[in-house]
Amino acid sequence: MFAIERRVGYAETDQMGAAHHSRVYIWFEEARTALLRDLGRPYGELEKAGVMFPVAEGGAQYRSFARFDANLAVSIERLVVRGASLRFEYVIRDGETLIAEGFTEHACIDPAGKVRRLPKDLRDFFAELARKSAPA
Amino acid sequence: MFAIERRVGYAETDQMGAAHHSRVYIWFEEARTALLRDLGRPYGELEKAGVMFPVAEGGAQYRSFARFDANLAVSIERLVVRGASLRFEYVIRDGETLIAEGFTEHACIDPAGKVRRLPKDLRDFFAELARKSAPA
Amino acid sequence: MFAIERRVGYAETDQMGAAHHSRVYIWFEEARTALLRDLGRPYGELEKAGVMFPVAEGGAQYRSFARFDANLAVSIERLVVRGASLRFEYVIRDGETLIAEGFTEHACIDPAGKVRRLPKDLRDFFAELARKSAPA
Amino acid sequence: MFAIERRVGYAETDQMGAAHHSRVYIWFEEARTALLRDLGRPYGELEKAGVMFPVAEGGAQYRSFARFDANLAVSIERLVVRGASLRFEYVIRDGETLIAEGFTEHACIDPAGKVRRLPKDLRDFFAELARKSAPA
Repeated sequence: MFAIERRVGYAETDQMGAAHHSRVYIWFEEARTALLRDLGRPYGELEKAGVMFPVAEGGAQYRSFARFDANLAVSIERLVVRGASLRFEYVIRDGETLIAEGFTEHACIDPAGKVRRLPKDLRDFFAELARKSAPA
Repeated sequence: MFAIERRVGYAETDQMGAAHHSRVYIWFEEARTALLRDLGRPYGELEKAGVMFPVAEGGAQYRSFARFDANLAVSIERLVVRGASLRFEYVIRDGETLIAEGFTEHACIDPAGKVRRLPKDLRDFFAELARKSAPA
Repeated sequence: MFAIERRVGYAETDQMGAAHHSRVYIWFEEARTALLRDLGRPYGELEKAGVMFPVAEGGAQYRSFARFDANLAVSIERLVVRGASLRFEYVIRDGETLIAEGFTEHACIDPAGKVRRLPKDLRDFFAELARKSAPA
Repeated sequence: MFAIERRVGYAETDQMGAAHHSRVYIWFEEARTALLRDLGRPYGELEKAGVMFPVAEGGAQYRSFARFDANLAVSIERLVVRGASLRFEYVIRDGETLIAEGFTEHACIDPAGKVRRLPKDLRDFFAELARKSAPA
């Protein structure tokens, strides 16, 4: 549905010789950020408009090590939209090698931290995206 | 079963004003590291002996924001031991406030990256720990 | 003058087998945060009162590798107070081994990002601290 | 002399609302890594050949905040080559805005951690680069 490429940085590795497992959440976030930017709804502007999407739940399965300087493809495979939350599903690959799969679920909150419904135009925007992301 | 305390550092916060969600995996790791050190089996020595425990799967549910300088209690609530893997379950609290719950599953591998069975003494060590961690 | 102890975490190492050089700035910050907390002027409260201390300059010399799980002593050796800035000097040791030396200089700004003078009570507070930190 | 572009990630910000000061060392490293990769001498291969370049000293001056999602240009402005060390100088910009300036000095060591001279072909390689980086 949407993918970014990004290199594994040296500082992301640990002494096991591959990227630390916590880094997948950074890569997922970079993919979300790039998706919104590319679609003309940058996350920074949503935030300024009082709509924030903290992560309410996340998970990942690790399949292979992501080595230093590997050129990872981080793809958003699926998006699910509900009234006050979003779910993204991701796959990370290094060429043909599956590195990890995962998901994040996001609540929609206002600056005071209260759960709020997605504004209608945003819900329509994400719903349209979700339709495109649905397997046929 | 076992807990550490640790403060939320400024660099762990993001502009939403609380610790970034990826940090829970760092805190889980610090709790595992402290547990092994306290029990006289520091992870650094396991690694030198050719036994490594990369994360094969992990997940977390986020309940409340972890604010800058909060004194978190990160507890390992449960340990499950299998032939070639370990599962840890965690709870993070800030005083009475539940911050997050999560788990990590670890494969046991050798320095070449091959899955290996846990050495018998380590399996016994973890099995004893797991018994202590089991709810009565 | 003031010191904290903290372990080198696994996620702080890189594939060279020691903590990444950027981590010293995290450790310096933890020492500053603990100093202010211990003295009853936690940084979080300064920030809420509209006084922020972003880093305007920093530097470090690296003497030895900081290995995984080493119990580092991070000490603030000296504090210099000027009208609108602060300078901290640090030494990091692992037992007898010198790990790194460094400094940070901080501007004092308001929430709008403008440089401001230190409020008088804070200037007195830091000046008193600086006197104590001066070599006899 | 050589530059990369990279976005400021959300996880790089802190609650002051801009990238944490420690991140410049990550960005400097990304620029060095990209430079070596582009020139056909990827750092991963140097390391496999037993040549490592840990940071012996580093410093930075911070001029403006690097905001979330800003598209930074991180440029290596100058390289200085000595018998057993390298010095890189950097400038980071967000469009016309100067974000930071800094440097890193690297020792050349072998896998046992001993300082070693740069292998001749590498010294020639870096010396050629340094000549190109010299201001006329």
